[in-house]
Amino acid sequence: MKGYEPLLYAASATSAEMLYFGRFWAPDAFVAFGCRKKKIALLNALERVRGEKESVFDVVLPLEAWMARAKQEMRRPVVGIADCIITAAKAYKIKGFCVPADFPIGLALALKKRRMPLIVGASPFFPKQMIKTEEELVLIRQANRVAAKGILAAEAALKEAKIGPGRKLFLEKKPLTSERLRSIIEMACLSLGGQAECIAAGGDQACDPHAVGTGVLRAGELIIVDVFPRMKASGYYGDMTRTFLKGEASDEQRELMKAVRTAQKRAMATVQAGASGKAVHQAAANYFEEKGYKTVTDQAVPEGFIHSTGHGVGLGLHEPLRISSQSQTLLKAGMVVTLEPGLYYPGIGGVRIEDVVAVTEEGFELLSSLHYKWELL
Amino acid sequence: MKGYEPLLYAASATSAEMLYFGRFWAPDAFVAFGCRKKKIALLNALERVRGEKESVFDVVLPLEAWMARAKQEMRRPVVGIADCIITAAKAYKIKGFCVPADFPIGLALALKKRRMPLIVGASPFFPKQMIKTEEELVLIRQANRVAAKGILAAEAALKEAKIGPGRKLFLEKKPLTSERLRSIIEMACLSLGGQAECIAAGGDQACDPHAVGTGVLRAGELIIVDVFPRMKASGYYGDMTRTFLKGEASDEQRELMKAVRTAQKRAMATVQAGASGKAVHQAAANYFEEKGYKTVTDQAVPEGFIHSTGHGVGLGLHEPLRISSQSQTLLKAGMVVTLEPGLYYPGIGGVRIEDVVAVTEEGFELLSSLHYKWELL
Repeated sequence: MKGYEPLLYAASATSAEMLYFGRFWAPDAFVAFGCRKKKIALLNALERVRGEKESVFDVVLPLEAWMARAKQEMRRPVVGIADCIITAAKAYKIKGFCVPADFPIGLALALKKRRMPLIVGASPFFPKQMIKTEEELVLIRQANRVAAKGILAAEAALKEAKIGPGRKLFLEKKPLTSERLRSIIEMACLSLGGQAECIAAGGDQACDPHAVGTGVLRAGELIIVDVFPRMKASGYYGDMTRTFLKGEASDEQRELMKAVRTAQKRAMATVQAGASGKAVHQAAANYFEEKGYKTVTDQAVPEGFIHSTGHGVGLGLHEPLRISSQSQTLLKAGMVVTLEPGLYYPGIGGVRIEDVVAVTEEGFELLSSLHYKWELL
Repeated sequence: MKGYEPLLYAASATSAEMLYFGRFWAPDAFVAFGCRKKKIALLNALERVRGEKESVFDVVLPLEAWMARAKQEMRRPVVGIADCIITAAKAYKIKGFCVPADFPIGLALALKKRRMPLIVGASPFFPKQMIKTEEELVLIRQANRVAAKGILAAEAALKEAKIGPGRKLFLEKKPLTSERLRSIIEMACLSLGGQAECIAAGGDQACDPHAVGTGVLRAGELIIVDVFPRMKASGYYGDMTRTFLKGEASDEQRELMKAVRTAQKRAMATVQAGASGKAVHQAAANYFEEKGYKTVTDQAVPEGFIHSTGHGVGLGLHEPLRISSQSQTLLKAGMVVTLEPGLYYPGIGGVRIEDVVAVTEEGFELLSSLHYKWELL
């Protein structure tokens, strides 16, 4: 909105918008705002020097000095962060601020009380953040290479594992648990500079798509391995999933795998600039329906295709782009999204396959790369 | 406030309040609220089953069904999360909500527009969260044991390192950089189940307290090693710092180290139920002043004791308790805080020593444990 400058108050360690705006990593919330195309931050003595060196802020204002100035101008012995913002806004002749939808209400009310005009911006707050530059694509590819290494480490462990009594898996004579497999994945990612979180869940556990997995893994069960490392150096995320099975799969499991991989290809085939997020999702969802894979969410344990097909990824793991039945997104070249259809049927198991693509004018470019072999003998 | 029930909308992966309220780990924001001492969450099909199994929510409402109900009751084809909250509030006869100061303004405005009374609560939002149970103290001790292992791994690497030309450190014939030392620390923590972040910064870099460190480390420089792992299993943080020096320290460096350790002891000696956060901070700050260590924040590079003495720690790394000159906190038994005075003088270097204590009626209990030897020959 004209005349309204962006205002953020967040920790860039957890706010992808703040990290994008200032390219400055900070563990605690701080103030940043725009002023006629310039970017300005208010940083305390703990962060200021680093902010001047490492960030893309055009101006770094020392918080302590501006707090003192606020006290003086407002003639009050105690001032808060809102007073400091007001004082800086006055100095920079800013008439009003536009804040993101997740701006903290406490600070917003304090600003309103002091008569600072505020409006709430749309989501995504910085639409340009959704359009990745070539440099960003390089970093996302790199993060996905680390994710792939994590999945490969899991695959190697599953290959090496022996099948013991009760079809339980053993690695180096000790039970191969979900916990252990996750640790193997995470160590592999971390050794490459990626702070990893991951899911390694087998059997019916994997039917709960965000269950990270617990206990001994077994032969004959589908094991979902979903790896989403954040690169420590760049802050960008990778996000990939493969589903494995140690031993021999049942026909039902093979059909499930084939259906998910085909649904992913169907979704991929619809990706191009101008396509809607909804259309991409429906390509996968309709294929499942065609093949008779029913989705039911209103029963005790939901089953079928119970999540959306994908989401934006970049400095945030789940950026505000949705490839879902509700998605209003029209894809543009440079947007980066996951394509991760899945099917979940307790008794048979869960399958999810996830890759990351960049939207192009003509279609898409794959930013993640790893084979799709899954039956491990 | 009477009749106002707590309402949260946050991802528990990044909101310590949400994690405390529901004891349920979720990567994306979801809705949770209280209702006459019960805890209720609205979870989608992706999270619902796991929420029922893993959380302490008394009731888990299926989001999709409540969205449908909102559409029906409001006779609108499209509804949002605010409508869903209103519908649930009506069903549960809730008259108004109390939200934390960091509640997202977008959702707050949507609720206000629909005439839901909202008030903003104080910080900390759940005062009880600041008082740790015995069970929580066990988990924080465990996280600090992992932090200590990370620091020990760094110490071992520094001990083993050889001093090369230009006083540069070499480990196994390759330069020992800050990056490499951090990786050693993080791998050590991760192998014990702690998702680690850390600082390993030497020389003048360490004078910038949040600089994580970059480039080759050198003999004769103070190296700050600050390790704050989050335990994957429990969500609790450890937070410890030691400062090392490879080779022989200068007299100035020894004095600095002695002053910081003494200041930490002075701060510790003031900790007990009833003491103010400010008094604890001043015990350290006054000691530095006595000894002639000046603090200046309003110059290009701030120096001296340029941060506060400590902060609360638990499910959040920086919980809303401050041991600072501005602190309004009155310590209570069961509160857990870091005590981490530091001195930073470019040219000499930086020293920070950090431990975690639980406040008791009589004094404190140390929740972190590691020696204070620092000159590594």
